[in-house]
Amino acid sequence: MTTTNIKDLLREYKRGTLSEDQVIRSLSSSMVESLGHATLDHHREMRQGFPEVIFCDGKTEGEVAEIAGRIIRHGSILLATRATKKHYAAVRRVARKARYNEIARTITANEHLVTPRGHGTILVVTAGTSDRQVAEEALETARMMGNITETLIDVGVAGIHRLLGQSRKLRDASVIIVVAGMDGALPSVVGGIVDVPVIAVPTSVGYGANFGGLAPLLTMLNSCAAGVTVVNIDNGFGAGFAASTINRKR
Amino acid sequence: MTTTNIKDLLREYKRGTLSEDQVIRSLSSSMVESLGHATLDHHREMRQGFPEVIFCDGKTEGEVAEIAGRIIRHGSILLATRATKKHYAAVRRVARKARYNEIARTITANEHLVTPRGHGTILVVTAGTSDRQVAEEALETARMMGNITETLIDVGVAGIHRLLGQSRKLRDASVIIVVAGMDGALPSVVGGIVDVPVIAVPTSVGYGANFGGLAPLLTMLNSCAAGVTVVNIDNGFGAGFAASTINRKR
Amino acid sequence: MTTTNIKDLLREYKRGTLSEDQVIRSLSSSMVESLGHATLDHHREMRQGFPEVIFCDGKTEGEVAEIAGRIIRHGSILLATRATKKHYAAVRRVARKARYNEIARTITANEHLVTPRGHGTILVVTAGTSDRQVAEEALETARMMGNITETLIDVGVAGIHRLLGQSRKLRDASVIIVVAGMDGALPSVVGGIVDVPVIAVPTSVGYGANFGGLAPLLTMLNSCAAGVTVVNIDNGFGAGFAASTINRKR
Amino acid sequence: MTTTNIKDLLREYKRGTLSEDQVIRSLSSSMVESLGHATLDHHREMRQGFPEVIFCDGKTEGEVAEIAGRIIRHGSILLATRATKKHYAAVRRVARKARYNEIARTITANEHLVTPRGHGTILVVTAGTSDRQVAEEALETARMMGNITETLIDVGVAGIHRLLGQSRKLRDASVIIVVAGMDGALPSVVGGIVDVPVIAVPTSVGYGANFGGLAPLLTMLNSCAAGVTVVNIDNGFGAGFAASTINRKR
Amino acid sequence: MTTTNIKDLLREYKRGTLSEDQVIRSLSSSMVESLGHATLDHHREMRQGFPEVIFCDGKTEGEVAEIAGRIIRHGSILLATRATKKHYAAVRRVARKARYNEIARTITANEHLVTPRGHGTILVVTAGTSDRQVAEEALETARMMGNITETLIDVGVAGIHRLLGQSRKLRDASVIIVVAGMDGALPSVVGGIVDVPVIAVPTSVGYGANFGGLAPLLTMLNSCAAGVTVVNIDNGFGAGFAASTINRKR
Amino acid sequence: MTTTNIKDLLREYKRGTLSEDQVIRSLSSSMVESLGHATLDHHREMRQGFPEVIFCDGKTEGEVAEIAGRIIRHGSILLATRATKKHYAAVRRVARKARYNEIARTITANEHLVTPRGHGTILVVTAGTSDRQVAEEALETARMMGNITETLIDVGVAGIHRLLGQSRKLRDASVIIVVAGMDGALPSVVGGIVDVPVIAVPTSVGYGANFGGLAPLLTMLNSCAAGVTVVNIDNGFGAGFAASTINRKR
Amino acid sequence: MTTTNIKDLLREYKRGTLSEDQVIRSLSSSMVESLGHATLDHHREMRQGFPEVIFCDGKTEGEVAEIAGRIIRHGSILLATRATKKHYAAVRRVARKARYNEIARTITANEHLVTPRGHGTILVVTAGTSDRQVAEEALETARMMGNITETLIDVGVAGIHRLLGQSRKLRDASVIIVVAGMDGALPSVVGGIVDVPVIAVPTSVGYGANFGGLAPLLTMLNSCAAGVTVVNIDNGFGAGFAASTINRKR
Amino acid sequence: MTTTNIKDLLREYKRGTLSEDQVIRSLSSSMVESLGHATLDHHREMRQGFPEVIFCDGKTEGEVAEIAGRIIRHGSILLATRATKKHYAAVRRVARKARYNEIARTITANEHLVTPRGHGTILVVTAGTSDRQVAEEALETARMMGNITETLIDVGVAGIHRLLGQSRKLRDASVIIVVAGMDGALPSVVGGIVDVPVIAVPTSVGYGANFGGLAPLLTMLNSCAAGVTVVNIDNGFGAGFAASTINRKR
Repeated sequence: MTTTNIKDLLREYKRGTLSEDQVIRSLSSSMVESLGHATLDHHREMRQGFPEVIFCDGKTEGEVAEIAGRIIRHGSILLATRATKKHYAAVRRVARKARYNEIARTITANEHLVTPRGHGTILVVTAGTSDRQVAEEALETARMMGNITETLIDVGVAGIHRLLGQSRKLRDASVIIVVAGMDGALPSVVGGIVDVPVIAVPTSVGYGANFGGLAPLLTMLNSCAAGVTVVNIDNGFGAGFAASTINRKR
Repeated sequence: MTTTNIKDLLREYKRGTLSEDQVIRSLSSSMVESLGHATLDHHREMRQGFPEVIFCDGKTEGEVAEIAGRIIRHGSILLATRATKKHYAAVRRVARKARYNEIARTITANEHLVTPRGHGTILVVTAGTSDRQVAEEALETARMMGNITETLIDVGVAGIHRLLGQSRKLRDASVIIVVAGMDGALPSVVGGIVDVPVIAVPTSVGYGANFGGLAPLLTMLNSCAAGVTVVNIDNGFGAGFAASTINRKR
Repeated sequence: MTTTNIKDLLREYKRGTLSEDQVIRSLSSSMVESLGHATLDHHREMRQGFPEVIFCDGKTEGEVAEIAGRIIRHGSILLATRATKKHYAAVRRVARKARYNEIARTITANEHLVTPRGHGTILVVTAGTSDRQVAEEALETARMMGNITETLIDVGVAGIHRLLGQSRKLRDASVIIVVAGMDGALPSVVGGIVDVPVIAVPTSVGYGANFGGLAPLLTMLNSCAAGVTVVNIDNGFGAGFAASTINRKR
Repeated sequence: MTTTNIKDLLREYKRGTLSEDQVIRSLSSSMVESLGHATLDHHREMRQGFPEVIFCDGKTEGEVAEIAGRIIRHGSILLATRATKKHYAAVRRVARKARYNEIARTITANEHLVTPRGHGTILVVTAGTSDRQVAEEALETARMMGNITETLIDVGVAGIHRLLGQSRKLRDASVIIVVAGMDGALPSVVGGIVDVPVIAVPTSVGYGANFGGLAPLLTMLNSCAAGVTVVNIDNGFGAGFAASTINRKR
Repeated sequence: MTTTNIKDLLREYKRGTLSEDQVIRSLSSSMVESLGHATLDHHREMRQGFPEVIFCDGKTEGEVAEIAGRIIRHGSILLATRATKKHYAAVRRVARKARYNEIARTITANEHLVTPRGHGTILVVTAGTSDRQVAEEALETARMMGNITETLIDVGVAGIHRLLGQSRKLRDASVIIVVAGMDGALPSVVGGIVDVPVIAVPTSVGYGANFGGLAPLLTMLNSCAAGVTVVNIDNGFGAGFAASTINRKR
Repeated sequence: MTTTNIKDLLREYKRGTLSEDQVIRSLSSSMVESLGHATLDHHREMRQGFPEVIFCDGKTEGEVAEIAGRIIRHGSILLATRATKKHYAAVRRVARKARYNEIARTITANEHLVTPRGHGTILVVTAGTSDRQVAEEALETARMMGNITETLIDVGVAGIHRLLGQSRKLRDASVIIVVAGMDGALPSVVGGIVDVPVIAVPTSVGYGANFGGLAPLLTMLNSCAAGVTVVNIDNGFGAGFAASTINRKR
Repeated sequence: MTTTNIKDLLREYKRGTLSEDQVIRSLSSSMVESLGHATLDHHREMRQGFPEVIFCDGKTEGEVAEIAGRIIRHGSILLATRATKKHYAAVRRVARKARYNEIARTITANEHLVTPRGHGTILVVTAGTSDRQVAEEALETARMMGNITETLIDVGVAGIHRLLGQSRKLRDASVIIVVAGMDGALPSVVGGIVDVPVIAVPTSVGYGANFGGLAPLLTMLNSCAAGVTVVNIDNGFGAGFAASTINRKR
Repeated sequence: MTTTNIKDLLREYKRGTLSEDQVIRSLSSSMVESLGHATLDHHREMRQGFPEVIFCDGKTEGEVAEIAGRIIRHGSILLATRATKKHYAAVRRVARKARYNEIARTITANEHLVTPRGHGTILVVTAGTSDRQVAEEALETARMMGNITETLIDVGVAGIHRLLGQSRKLRDASVIIVVAGMDGALPSVVGGIVDVPVIAVPTSVGYGANFGGLAPLLTMLNSCAAGVTVVNIDNGFGAGFAASTINRKR
């Protein structure tokens, strides 16, 4: 029920064409539907300035291109994750300037619309070089949401000096995303050094009893460093999004 | 090697009692140990004002009392989690004014030392009444770390109106902790309504294929609401600590 | 043992050609076999009017075509699930008018034989667009079994307003099938709004700790909304069949 | 916003004390909260005549008694599940006539308010005598919701003749609940004989690789009989509730 | 140490060339090695007449052909399991008359050497047509080991009459192998009808919560029919071998 | 319909009191029920001489005593497994001479009725002394079913000589039951030495990653010795029963 | 066949009482049994000086006392693990001077017989104070096997400086046992600092998704520090034993 | 902070350009960074003579070639594991003499720089021929780290005589690596025969309930032979590295 509908209702009531009871019944019956739209508006407003995100996995190239086209025509920021090169080729047809990050597997466009929204730096730390796919997804997400980002690559706990030698970088960050596969031990060490929010991302990097990322996931959930929170295996996007939400609030 | 030791070293060097090489060798050899203390100091300073926390599970009553006594004698805030009544009785002997929260199973003391450190409100939301043990642990932790807290109890998704009727409270919070057992679906709904950081805590409440909290844990890790992060099953303390870290940074 | 056989037996007994014991032994020894056929008849009759279903997975193209040919020659409704395009090509050779639903991966024929058997509408609700393969299988199954169907697509809990804005559709259904991957939270919300039977179908859509659909499966089994029942992961056919059985009985 | 509030609003608007815009703003701002109550009312009405249910597990005796007292004072039907003898003793103090079913572990009261709502018979079948706790919970739930119930006990598949000898009972039912632990094979056999809805309930009865009911749960989810749906391990209440919802709709 | 060696030893001892202690030391040190050969001999004899088996999985075509060639040159029966068509092509080069069973994925040769060793019939029963790969492997194994075999295909529990209509065949067997995927319920029913040894083989046929055969495996281990034993998932060979061992002993 | 009933029917038919059609109708209508009893009789006859078995777990003392009393009054052999001392005390009241095996946790009576049915010896081998509870259950079962039994205790693979030193005993057995917890490696070694049927029983003996018997269960299912079959964790009864079935057939 | 038996044989052969063939047959027939004793002797000698160990779990007090008595009467070192106070009380009756380590839950005696066998120091490191039960078991085992031990307690990775401040101790060790629960991250850090063998012991310390030690077990198996090996959850004895074997060989 | 930096600092202090406090502050602030480098140096020295290892999995051919080039230019030993033929082709371009072991999937170069560092022989034992990929990786690793190696192939426990016939080889080794898939039982038998360190490597060889190596992993962790330690599934490199560390220390 739009504002115009309600106005019509009120006017008919004032004219006497509708009784008090009729107005109330009309309002009541439309309430749930109204809420739908109201929440929708609020929802959109609430997220204003944040990129709408397309999760490409399981979508055809045509579908991704169609949604991407709509977003760009509305003058919004484009972020598509888990995109293949074929997805990118399809998107390119509707958005010439779209950019593809092969490592992160993201498609982005309208970057000029990104406005700085983060109050500090989001630092993405990885245990190994093989974790950088997930790290790049987190970085692209954080950047498209208006954050300044930094990285600290290949500082796994088996050579703890590599991490300690960079402790200033760790302490200067506002939020830290720690990406690690294999034993997933890095977030515990980082979480014990700093006092900023630490988001841990387990990756499916490893073999044998890694069980597709289950090993580092359990490690991180059981982290002995208080205050570490965890997202799904390989979920760089989720980590980048959560970090943005935290960083934005300052 | 303390500051005083280094001062002595420098003075002897100035006096000529020690050669340049001797000073360097002394410094080098003590470096690792020094670091231990240096980091320790820094560590403590870094966390300054935050309560030291005793995890009572697996500790004898004597051990808990002894650590608690030391903390109180140093004039620090006391927070002990997973404490039994017996732990409390033992602590009472060394800290008369210690308080026991039977639901949260926490022992606290020196609450007057808590200074407001959070910039907004930490809201703890629970799906069912049975989740409140975990919720109380989160609340006590957040409060002892200087935060203002609010609660929204028993608003599980099976009666979605209960949650929606309280949407203002949800939007007014700075950080939201969502505690849920059984299907663990609540964080997804909350995360879709608000744009503040949401920390999900799975609980072991439920039966059958709940598998001791595994079901809600997996639900939360797979949340379709972007930006939800997760802590260990029943880990109210971890959620409260992470929320404090986020809230403090504003 | 047919009626004629028994008659023969009785007559021989009356004539004295067979002793009492011989008659009893003959009857006993044929009993189990008799049951086999009796049940078979009953079984066929019981299901009369319901399409026979071919599960194509693990069957060669030749095998599927051969069974399909037999069904069509007997003038029955054809429904084949988990069919590849190659299966379809093979079936086309024996059944020119057979139809292939690429999303549902079903082959159907003799649709004109379908008679309305459901007393109300079966509504299929999906959390995301990626769940529609499974949803389509459920829809084709329900339709071929004589039901009127409706759909509500992409109304996952992370944007709860999308669902609430359609609550009339939910309440007008006789049976609701809810298809969801990732966190699998949607059936709990739907089950809390309506008072009709809700069948939940977990899908393998998702990644990481989704573990091939295990996460939404556990969520649904632990649903805090009473009365939700669950079928196997990705089992759209099973959900459509169960819904038909429920709908048919009114 | 209650009906009275809206009436006041409309009258002030008619009198001219409030402008059109003021009325619309008042209505809009209260919408979300209103929905809460509206849905609540609808919710209650929707379920009218159905007993409110207390899940006693994890609630203190005082809590259960207090809720039970409130339900009875409102003149509603009482059903409490997973109740201990201590819960019962506490409830007895507020509801003298409350009845305790030791096998089902249910507390019930105001049974005279139960009105017949089911159109057919709900049949509860168990594989072994050890499954009857769960079966009794399903039976009490179905009965309190106004259904006629029947039982078929100890007809597990290892002695298939016991089941086949009762096939009439199976075919006369409107909905069948099959309760089985150990190998959980019974629902597949029952589902192959009848054409009415079959709800399978795995139980934690068994040992070794039963893994607390996981074995029969997986068996049932993979049932080769189409149309079988499954509820959580040991969830007699859920099965009874779902069966009632199905039975009521005819 | 061969008999000849020991003779030499004894003779040298008699001649006085070796002392008592020297003889004992020589005997002792060779004991473990001797056992090796002794057991080996016994082992070979023990299995005499039984085909040597090549497990092709993970072996190159060259390796399989080489071992097969050696077996045939020694005039033994050839049985190779899990063989691809490429393995077969390679074997054909060394054994012209080798036969390939495409369903069972077995290569066999020297069938004329098989001598009847089983005292009764080994019956292989399958729940569905998709289980026949595993069933064929069991059949080939049993046949090559000198047994008479029978089959009963596609008699799953969802149509129990199909099984009961064949109960004579079941009771006439000496050993029964039951192959089933999906819910794995068939061995429980068969085990309740007959009093001969039943070997259950779970297959990876199914989808979703079948988890690669875990579901039927657990079902079979928890079978409520006493006396059912189980082999590994898809292990037709193991079942055929065990059945042969049982059948041979009569 | 009992044999007597059928006789009456036939006689009335012969006398002319019943027409041919009436006899046929009476026989037909009672078929399913008759089958129940027929199969039951056949079932009993089929198993003749074998003890009926009470599984006490989850049964009250009264229930066990009642069933035991009935068995004894019918002059049958009594075997009850998983019996507590309390179960025994209750059984003693109805069966003075009942015997309790505290290690096996079995109650037995009417042992004088046991007739030798096994053609060879059933050998029960255990890896450790802690496995003997399960071994004793297997032994009691095998003995009550008329078999001669032997044991080989504490011959785990970590001291392989203990096993090899007893190889004659191994080779003299007709069927071997191997009971092992921890690594569950023993059946593989035994299965490689002998050519008789080997039934492996995993036990829940062990700790840590034994996971309640899961470790030895998986070991045994993956045994590299062909022909080993497996029963459920701690299922001594099942192993004893299966071994009897195998032994009896010679 | 003992050495004396063989001597008799040889002498009879020399005297001509036994023929060459008779000697050979006697030797052959006794080989397997002989091996048993031979290996046994060798086995014992091989392990000479190492304590025999009683695993008390699942043994009665009487059994433990009986074995302990036999060991002490033979003048050997006594080590019993997983011993309760009741086990100790029973052992005290046969061995007055036996010592009980309440934390390690070990019983020891004849410590004066322990001879130094290790060439360096075995260092036991623990992540938390709650891991010390397992650490103590490792220490007692290592000490009773003749090693010098050191400890480094409560140096978990969340406060990495505590570990680094003790790096000398780490580098001075010959073998390091690292005991850790919760996230199990410590062995990875230790393994990256030192170049001596590191044995990791996961403990069941933790809660929630620790799953009884599964989390640290997986972490350790996936350790990114090369050369870390792992023993079973809570298996302090195994770690101490393995460390002794390594240390002894230098 | 290098030695030169510290010297400058001391000289400025002596000259009076820097106060005592300024020197201390400079030293303190650089401490953590210093440690980084110090440890790094030590780290490198510690490992001196040991090959640096490239884990090729998840690295592009270009990346592997680039790192390999750098290692060779520095005159170090090259060892790359999990290398494909394509990786090798790329490495060949920068290192002509690089060698590829197709079974082990390793690339090696500068083998002439390997100096003997092991004091005894490392023996690699495999249960089956399919385990040799993992065995070869262990062998290459051990060899490149300066050890003498031996092998014992295809001596699985199902033919125990094959192992016993080689017991001398087992006893002559300094460290034994046992590689086994399927039931993983071999390390328990080996560990019971020898008194040298045994490292067990589970492999993913097998099918069905092997679950990608989980079965042998659990078997080995639960080994009843004391002193067996375990590495990750298929982790031949880790086993070879750990064995080298143990062997080097003598």
